[in-house]
Amino acid sequence: MRRFAIVGHRATTDPGFSLNDMPGSAGRMDVLCRCVNAGFFLSHDLRRNVECYLILKGGPETTILFKGDSVRSLNPDERSAGALIKKALGKTCGSEFIESSPGVFIRRGGLARLLSEYPFAVLDESGDDIRIVKSLPENLLLSDHQNFTEEEEAMTADLPRLSVGPQVLHADHTITIYQNEADRRSA
Amino acid sequence: MRRFAIVGHRATTDPGFSLNDMPGSAGRMDVLCRCVNAGFFLSHDLRRNVECYLILKGGPETTILFKGDSVRSLNPDERSAGALIKKALGKTCGSEFIESSPGVFIRRGGLARLLSEYPFAVLDESGDDIRIVKSLPENLLLSDHQNFTEEEEAMTADLPRLSVGPQVLHADHTITIYQNEADRRSA
Repeated sequence: MRRFAIVGHRATTDPGFSLNDMPGSAGRMDVLCRCVNAGFFLSHDLRRNVECYLILKGGPETTILFKGDSVRSLNPDERSAGALIKKALGKTCGSEFIESSPGVFIRRGGLARLLSEYPFAVLDESGDDIRIVKSLPENLLLSDHQNFTEEEEAMTADLPRLSVGPQVLHADHTITIYQNEADRRSA
Repeated sequence: MRRFAIVGHRATTDPGFSLNDMPGSAGRMDVLCRCVNAGFFLSHDLRRNVECYLILKGGPETTILFKGDSVRSLNPDERSAGALIKKALGKTCGSEFIESSPGVFIRRGGLARLLSEYPFAVLDESGDDIRIVKSLPENLLLSDHQNFTEEEEAMTADLPRLSVGPQVLHADHTITIYQNEADRRSA
């Protein structure tokens, strides 16, 4: 299983956000939607061995999980992932995941809980090159367009850090390059 | 200069298309918008050394050019590129590029003309691995979600072919992985 977790620092938890303005009033929800795309899509196929965790912090901290082995109605465009996120946010939920549509789940709580559940590595420009590390971690944590907060840095200070190359990239591009390295190693 | 050309087999040339339905009525314009994103965006920066040619075939064959050294008002979300494409399609143009907004140009004509102007290589799963080729071509041609037509295959039969890895990927993901290899070689 490959797991990607992306922290959306301003991403709204209000299901009323507009799919026509995800960069603005939805708090850069477009960034998270592109990460979902990068996590799952192959040409005319979906990666079934992927889980994608979106940590929304623009409201009561909330986690939305997309599971590749069961997700339905997910298309590559940003609005498609956005519509599934909207639907999830419309569900009443507590601290355990409930399914809002096939393969999409939501719970209250965010990064601290997730870090206690899986051993993550951080995809970060300061890390070791993914092409030369001996074994590639399966669970990867990324930030959206903003840097990790001081609190998040403290929570992740002891985690391995991996870099995908010499340029600082968008989170979704970083996921795409990680997938390529993982594909090559498992080919 | 890095040049990416992407053939949009059904991409509309009608400026009336809806930004709310780029996968449907606009003929998978969303694919081309994501290619623009992958071509240009760095974290909080734009790649100025990139040109992106979109070849729209869902109407009279038309080419839209984004130039990294002068483009303005381009944001990472699909709607942003889509809005600039819409604006370009609203311009009356002939066989020479005219500028529709800063750094965005449009002309009639498509792949045949472009292939006569630059020496392209084709990004294709059957090609040589980009990690092992001695020199990386600067001008890359890709297809959208559809395969090249027989006519396009004939036009490109003699061009070098490069592959980014073992999986068949979306065009924008392929561009992202190419950029990473090129970044590493020029670092």
